[in-house]
Amino acid sequence: MTGGIQIFHESTVPFEESPMGRGVRLRWVISKASGAPRYAMRVFEVDPGGEIPLHQHWYEQEMYVLEGEGMAGDADSEQPIGPGTVLYVPPNHPHRMRNTGKGVLRFICVIPH
Amino acid sequence: MTGGIQIFHESTVPFEESPMGRGVRLRWVISKASGAPRYAMRVFEVDPGGEIPLHQHWYEQEMYVLEGEGMAGDADSEQPIGPGTVLYVPPNHPHRMRNTGKGVLRFICVIPH
Repeated sequence: MTGGIQIFHESTVPFEESPMGRGVRLRWVISKASGAPRYAMRVFEVDPGGEIPLHQHWYEQEMYVLEGEGMAGDADSEQPIGPGTVLYVPPNHPHRMRNTGKGVLRFICVIPH
Repeated sequence: MTGGIQIFHESTVPFEESPMGRGVRLRWVISKASGAPRYAMRVFEVDPGGEIPLHQHWYEQEMYVLEGEGMAGDADSEQPIGPGTVLYVPPNHPHRMRNTGKGVLRFICVIPH
């Protein structure tokens, strides 16, 4: 899709199961298909007890926690995350995330194409 | 700052007044100074009655509404926005935003460096 401004609720975008971990799904709310030239915005949900195990990739991640409680970190350490937590993961840096709460853990994750 | 993963609450980043409009402030939560190679994440707050008038720039915006109620659009039309609304503004496309609610309008806005 290209053209003008696009305004819509995230719930209009179907979830996809994520290959990144157990109990993890995501919506690609802005992507190449939106016409976005440089980077994509995804909304993730992780079920209680779900996790994204330690992994790494060539690209950076810029993340913002919307809802829920969890732990996030790299190979060496973890720290608590919750609504309003910002995470910056540099390119090629190992990282992990898990839901330690009773509700869904929801966060935004922006990555380059 | 460069190096490892960065995890912190958005509230640890001071607000700056935004030159974009009346009653508008922002936190640069991830920026070049974070070591981010490609794009920056900002958290905006718009006071009740505040607005960002119609403007345009060379870069795209990828936005997500966290809290509050408002209207957003381009020169031709506006539509309601609220928590969970996603906005994609293409490069060089005129756009505007205003808070029509009783509380603060909060949103994330990601732009390239």
